[in-house]
Amino acid sequence: MKILVVGGSGLIGAEVVKQLSERHEVVIASINQGDIKVDITSENSIKEMYRQVGLLDAVVMTTGKVIFETFTLMNAEKYQKGLQNKLMGQIHLVLQGLDYLNASGSFTLTSGILNRDPIKSGSSAAMVNGAIDGFVRSAAIEMPKALRINAVSPTVVTEALKDYAPYFRGYRPVPVAEVALAYCKSVEGLQTGQVYYVD
Amino acid sequence: MKILVVGGSGLIGAEVVKQLSERHEVVIASINQGDIKVDITSENSIKEMYRQVGLLDAVVMTTGKVIFETFTLMNAEKYQKGLQNKLMGQIHLVLQGLDYLNASGSFTLTSGILNRDPIKSGSSAAMVNGAIDGFVRSAAIEMPKALRINAVSPTVVTEALKDYAPYFRGYRPVPVAEVALAYCKSVEGLQTGQVYYVD
Repeated sequence: MKILVVGGSGLIGAEVVKQLSERHEVVIASINQGDIKVDITSENSIKEMYRQVGLLDAVVMTTGKVIFETFTLMNAEKYQKGLQNKLMGQIHLVLQGLDYLNASGSFTLTSGILNRDPIKSGSSAAMVNGAIDGFVRSAAIEMPKALRINAVSPTVVTEALKDYAPYFRGYRPVPVAEVALAYCKSVEGLQTGQVYYVD
Repeated sequence: MKILVVGGSGLIGAEVVKQLSERHEVVIASINQGDIKVDITSENSIKEMYRQVGLLDAVVMTTGKVIFETFTLMNAEKYQKGLQNKLMGQIHLVLQGLDYLNASGSFTLTSGILNRDPIKSGSSAAMVNGAIDGFVRSAAIEMPKALRINAVSPTVVTEALKDYAPYFRGYRPVPVAEVALAYCKSVEGLQTGQVYYVD
């Protein structure tokens, strides 16, 4: 398979690339590293990326930003940031990717645990993760060309605890290698419309 | 209690108003009917509405539009419509309402079944409903002044079948009077962070 990993230079993305590269051809896209640069908030940047990469068997997305902020300090603008970056960034990648995926190819998006097990300052993440989970379950039943679409919803990753531990006290972390397995299942299996909880 | 029902002239909203009015003072806001007119996509319109209504014990939202369209005919602009109307419209009502709710007051939002039981043309609704469910679960744990927040997630309403039956074949409809009960439970009970599935 030829697989594009958008966000392939991040902590989770790099591990997904590592595991999938053992068996497939992997192209890494990222905001400022990897084989191809892409800004997921720009439809033109995404268009140019797909044009350069050509036909694919899978697109994996391990990318997207939201603002973490105490709820009483949130405002509409801060929620928009997460909607336009992590949510619509991944939606743009799906919509434009429809023309570049070979029949029976797959999209794998990334949401996260915070819409089902919330933390302080996580209301934007919860909103965006819920949106991604809902979108994937619904879009799956209408995909053209027998394309598949799933999401991976991980808890905090063990290797990220040095930065995030204070936000996730009491959460059992999962090693990044185990999180990456869910992406492999999505890409290399045949399921669709699934949200893989990794926690 | 003094309760504001935004969207109180719609099918579900009118029934919620009917049931809550038996026991409380209810103010109806709507895009073009009711006691007060409000455009939920306009932060200024919402600000003016709250200024006119004054202090409240509960805000109920039974409002919000999304585009229903075959997935392959969707585009980013059509998803934005649902994000900016049904999702951010309700978020604006919460954010601005924080200053107008008395301590221990409540917000009750409306999502819907389509993120957990999808239909054709429902991918925007699924996205928005998932976002609302996630937001409510998360915002609940950070609410100031012991405020509460819940969502009601109904299936298709029996009284709406004349318009929506073709989209919901095989779905067991629920009478609007039963859907309205969930809003009463949210407003008149003490639970928070709940998504009440009515199906």
